[in-house]
Amino acid sequence: MSAQPLRVGLAGLGTVGGGTWAVLARNAEEIRRRAGRSIAITAVADLDAAKAQTLTKGSARFTADAMALAKDAEIDVVIELIGGYGFAKEFVLEAIRQGKHVVTANKALLAIHGNEIFAAAQAKGVMVAYEAAVAGGIPIIKALREGLTANKIEWIAGIINGTTNFILSEMRDKGLAFSEVLKEAQRLGYAEADPTFDIEGIDAAHKATIMASIAFGIPLQFDRAHIEGISSLQAKDIRYAEQLGYRIKLLGITKQHANGVELRVHPTLISSKKLIANVEGAMNAVWVKGDAVGHTMYYGKGAGAEPTASAVIADLVDVARTLAIDSGHRVPDLGFQSAEIVMRSVVPIDEIESGYYLRLRVRDQPGVLADITRALADGGISIDAFFQREPDEGADETDVVLIAHRCIEKKMRDAIRKIEALKTVLSEVVVLRLESFS
Amino acid sequence: MSAQPLRVGLAGLGTVGGGTWAVLARNAEEIRRRAGRSIAITAVADLDAAKAQTLTKGSARFTADAMALAKDAEIDVVIELIGGYGFAKEFVLEAIRQGKHVVTANKALLAIHGNEIFAAAQAKGVMVAYEAAVAGGIPIIKALREGLTANKIEWIAGIINGTTNFILSEMRDKGLAFSEVLKEAQRLGYAEADPTFDIEGIDAAHKATIMASIAFGIPLQFDRAHIEGISSLQAKDIRYAEQLGYRIKLLGITKQHANGVELRVHPTLISSKKLIANVEGAMNAVWVKGDAVGHTMYYGKGAGAEPTASAVIADLVDVARTLAIDSGHRVPDLGFQSAEIVMRSVVPIDEIESGYYLRLRVRDQPGVLADITRALADGGISIDAFFQREPDEGADETDVVLIAHRCIEKKMRDAIRKIEALKTVLSEVVVLRLESFS
Repeated sequence: MSAQPLRVGLAGLGTVGGGTWAVLARNAEEIRRRAGRSIAITAVADLDAAKAQTLTKGSARFTADAMALAKDAEIDVVIELIGGYGFAKEFVLEAIRQGKHVVTANKALLAIHGNEIFAAAQAKGVMVAYEAAVAGGIPIIKALREGLTANKIEWIAGIINGTTNFILSEMRDKGLAFSEVLKEAQRLGYAEADPTFDIEGIDAAHKATIMASIAFGIPLQFDRAHIEGISSLQAKDIRYAEQLGYRIKLLGITKQHANGVELRVHPTLISSKKLIANVEGAMNAVWVKGDAVGHTMYYGKGAGAEPTASAVIADLVDVARTLAIDSGHRVPDLGFQSAEIVMRSVVPIDEIESGYYLRLRVRDQPGVLADITRALADGGISIDAFFQREPDEGADETDVVLIAHRCIEKKMRDAIRKIEALKTVLSEVVVLRLESFS
Repeated sequence: MSAQPLRVGLAGLGTVGGGTWAVLARNAEEIRRRAGRSIAITAVADLDAAKAQTLTKGSARFTADAMALAKDAEIDVVIELIGGYGFAKEFVLEAIRQGKHVVTANKALLAIHGNEIFAAAQAKGVMVAYEAAVAGGIPIIKALREGLTANKIEWIAGIINGTTNFILSEMRDKGLAFSEVLKEAQRLGYAEADPTFDIEGIDAAHKATIMASIAFGIPLQFDRAHIEGISSLQAKDIRYAEQLGYRIKLLGITKQHANGVELRVHPTLISSKKLIANVEGAMNAVWVKGDAVGHTMYYGKGAGAEPTASAVIADLVDVARTLAIDSGHRVPDLGFQSAEIVMRSVVPIDEIESGYYLRLRVRDQPGVLADITRALADGGISIDAFFQREPDEGADETDVVLIAHRCIEKKMRDAIRKIEALKTVLSEVVVLRLESFS
């Protein structure tokens, strides 16, 4: 396995470029343990030299000419975060011509010029990795290209544009008109100054086009996609749909069809009981139906600096592992290189912190609750909620239920011993843990 | 790229073995286009010769002695679906000793003997693939080992046992006691005759142990896991929790902790607003928090013949691709080998079938609805639901909303033209598509 760092040239220091730099720096050790070698951004390209200086503090070579990166003999992989499909295309093709591997987050570029780019990469024997191009940090490309290879994919339906999902969620939640929510989204940074690509469904169509090709093994055909956005959607239709048990989502849909494949993006009513109907705000989710696996769904952040960087860097690790392939082990058994597995002991349950649900059977008499809450307070445990059931007709005992704030398990066990010793508490306390995952 | 089929020996012809055989046969062509070569089960082992004959119809060599498969020089990969960790361990270690790659769905084996097995595989330079060992058809091992490599994983929380999730869902839905629902689950085949491993959380702990090692790069430490099952859970606690806004799920949790890692399985209250709280029935879901990507979630069937086979076969495709590695391309750009990309045209929107939501502005007078439904009926379109709003005070017009049954788009467009020509219909019909994805 090579001890040399993988030398990466990063073109484009916008949001995602900055996130990629930051995550690679912060998690360098973790990433090296997984990839089997260091991954180092050795050169960056951006029109803004000051921005590059602020980001890299001079720790990577700088050029204002991205094309120079593509030709740089000291670089193994380029990351294309330039955007658009004019210069970005020339840049990627040049990098391929120079025998460099390419990582890109550029869905528009691939949806429109992917056939040409992949053919060039194939001919040159280099990798073009693009996990970040669809659904940001969600590893959906990997799921489709590798995880579901046993299946005939029947259809894919995805919430693959966070801007529009945010707008639709807000329209529903607050009963506001599209134009009002769009302004709010722009203010919050969820929508761009020119939001056309997002709100008219074009961005989602780029992503659906890519997923269709992977699902069905067909060339990229963006120009054949049927695209409708959400800009003419009225708040009252969202409300009426809800009254009938549906939510409206902008879905990218691709499906096997007797005469070919379906490829379409449009606002779609879905039963509010479906898990995907409950994906709210700027989150993304891709729902995939395979003939063997049945329904699967992949959920996460579809945009943003670090979620997108997560996908860009996963591609770099894939490239590093593939280049270092050795005795059949591209991916280490446990994800980390075997020499990098480090013992960390499992923490005893006593030391673990969680919230708690407590149910107590108590005598229905004054002061019971005071005794219980006192025992908890003495242990430094606060109560988030409680209720006491009305005793059944003629009964003199009842249930008390408490939700206790997060604390160390040992503390809770001590408090419970005291509570169980109370004369008014009639049986063992039922204790369940509660997690907020926030 | 090798044109020889990958020769697979399948040990264990139970539910998953049968599913693997069936899916590999049914999707042989799709799988070959993805893997770059055929994947052929050339030999099977099972104690039951008649079962083997029924399944393979003599198209694969048969042995009653699985160990003979492990030593078979004509086999490249063995699939271990024997179960347990006695003989299965000997079988896997022998196969590794013989230089064969191993695919297994055996979580107990890996959670308990994984360190030894992976060390043996490492020394011999063979792959041990085990996507099917955690969460069945959901490609969660791939997501953790490859998709999220940029991240410090902060925690994982998974519904990773379908039996217990089914039981908890039914207890909540129907207000029944654990023992009653367990019987129902056994009758429906969701629980085994001896359900101990599932209901006591042991199976979930095997899976959580494996995920912890991948997430944190630590040895497998099943014996240190804290395990509580659901057999003593009472229906009233599920009800009380719900009144407080929580659902109870059996979660496998692993977390970074100042002093090591947490590794625990227990019933857990989670806010019913969380997506994972709404994963019902026998479905699985794994929720992962990474420092860069944020929250991601992976959802699907965690058990069953074909969902598990989906993961087993994905591992075979990974092995085939890795063995055939050529000019840096382990995974083809679009998931299918480039020579296997086949043109399929995109179907025009007119020919696509979906359900429809229609909103019409109509004059509030008798016969309006009859005219509209007549126009739809003439087009052969049935109506699933409709409502008419009360007109606003003093107004003589109102909204009618209809949900129309699935039909071809062209039919719907024709019907709408007729509807828009009605004198009582006052503006263009608002048309949105509706999908049931069932």
